[in-house]
Amino acid sequence: MKIELIGLENLPLVKKDDDLSSLIVDVAFNQGLKWKDGDIIVIAETIISKAEGNYINLDSIKPGKKANHLAQKTGKSPELMEAILNHSREIVKVGNDFIVTETNHGFICANAGIDESNVEKGWATPLPLHPDKSAKNLRKNIELKIGKQLAVIISDTQGRPFREGAVGVAIGSSGIKTIWNRKGEIDLYGRKLETTQIAVADELAASASLIMGQADEGMPVVVVRGYSSFEILKDPESGAQDLIRPKKYDAFRQ
Amino acid sequence: MKIELIGLENLPLVKKDDDLSSLIVDVAFNQGLKWKDGDIIVIAETIISKAEGNYINLDSIKPGKKANHLAQKTGKSPELMEAILNHSREIVKVGNDFIVTETNHGFICANAGIDESNVEKGWATPLPLHPDKSAKNLRKNIELKIGKQLAVIISDTQGRPFREGAVGVAIGSSGIKTIWNRKGEIDLYGRKLETTQIAVADELAASASLIMGQADEGMPVVVVRGYSSFEILKDPESGAQDLIRPKKYDAFRQ
Repeated sequence: MKIELIGLENLPLVKKDDDLSSLIVDVAFNQGLKWKDGDIIVIAETIISKAEGNYINLDSIKPGKKANHLAQKTGKSPELMEAILNHSREIVKVGNDFIVTETNHGFICANAGIDESNVEKGWATPLPLHPDKSAKNLRKNIELKIGKQLAVIISDTQGRPFREGAVGVAIGSSGIKTIWNRKGEIDLYGRKLETTQIAVADELAASASLIMGQADEGMPVVVVRGYSSFEILKDPESGAQDLIRPKKYDAFRQ
Repeated sequence: MKIELIGLENLPLVKKDDDLSSLIVDVAFNQGLKWKDGDIIVIAETIISKAEGNYINLDSIKPGKKANHLAQKTGKSPELMEAILNHSREIVKVGNDFIVTETNHGFICANAGIDESNVEKGWATPLPLHPDKSAKNLRKNIELKIGKQLAVIISDTQGRPFREGAVGVAIGSSGIKTIWNRKGEIDLYGRKLETTQIAVADELAASASLIMGQADEGMPVVVVRGYSSFEILKDPESGAQDLIRPKKYDAFRQ
């Protein structure tokens, strides 16, 4: 059993209104990649935001009182803090040098996922506004062009409680169940499985992150090929929203 | 750029005192796998515990008062709860149907990582007692047999706060830096990177988990091949202990 993680090379710098489906199909063609049913395309969220023109001009932001207060506390700029608050439903935790919020989508992450890397000075990119919808549109557009059945996952690199370092996670997804529910299955000894929910979309995002690297954002599109569970997990409706634990069930938010 | 995740097939059921290095080298040989420098072997923690004879006979445990109380609260057996407490430094969170502790190693996970799946009824397997040491021994033994420079990662499947579903994480590691510190590197636009610490060992464990599956524990050893950052990350001393965030720096434990 083998899975391949294939980085798409020489993707041009993405800008507003670029058709990502064409860009991806073109670079794959140039690289000699022959698409297969079940290929899973993992895309860094930044280039989705860029293609969608989803930029924040930090210089144009007028920070309010709350943003000024939190900026002072965390050492971040008041303009960035105002943008973070605008993209958040709730503040989850604030420390000397960080702020973790629940984004408007429901993700819990630092800075509401707003990224000042890989964009020009004075600007920042928030997470895509509707990442599951973006993933679905991109999947359908690419499927139309190549005639294969795919999944598309939009990934971000996020920290987590308890463990050092950030890892790739899925913030948008289409074409595959993001959670594999294995309840009722049994193990080698005929006993019921204990770990029954696997966040496959996050594992796919983490594996693609090994190739994407972080520094130069040079390889933001990775094809995962040979994931044989695709056949039983394919699903046109599941999205990364399914990965969000509702607050009332989250012991670490009570 | 390409990474391959190769599952080792037909590994026999592992039992106490088995020499895992021989088993792994043999099944790889039978499969026609030619080892390369930089191959990263990811192994499910259960088979490390089995080979080390690290079993818990639940029937022989006499639960104390605290275990009985917590068992009632969580619906777990008092014997399992006593075992969980024995393998924990501290209780982090208890709910109606779960207990999250800090294990004796320092990992924060459910049930102190004690697993009743894939072992005979009445028995359970805790996490390996010294997983970084186990990883190092196994790496050195395999390296001696095949004459290549490797990394070995021992993986577990664990839940996390805020997100549904469990993912593969590293609980033991040898041969590679588990955290990639990219501080000081710059992005495409000459700005400093924001996400500077990447938990590569966790990303490697998550990617291998895609192959391992969970139900029948049929493929507990996966070779990750072609991770080109191996060359700059190789390190004989780094371990999964580096992935543990010290309590005093963990905003979600204060």
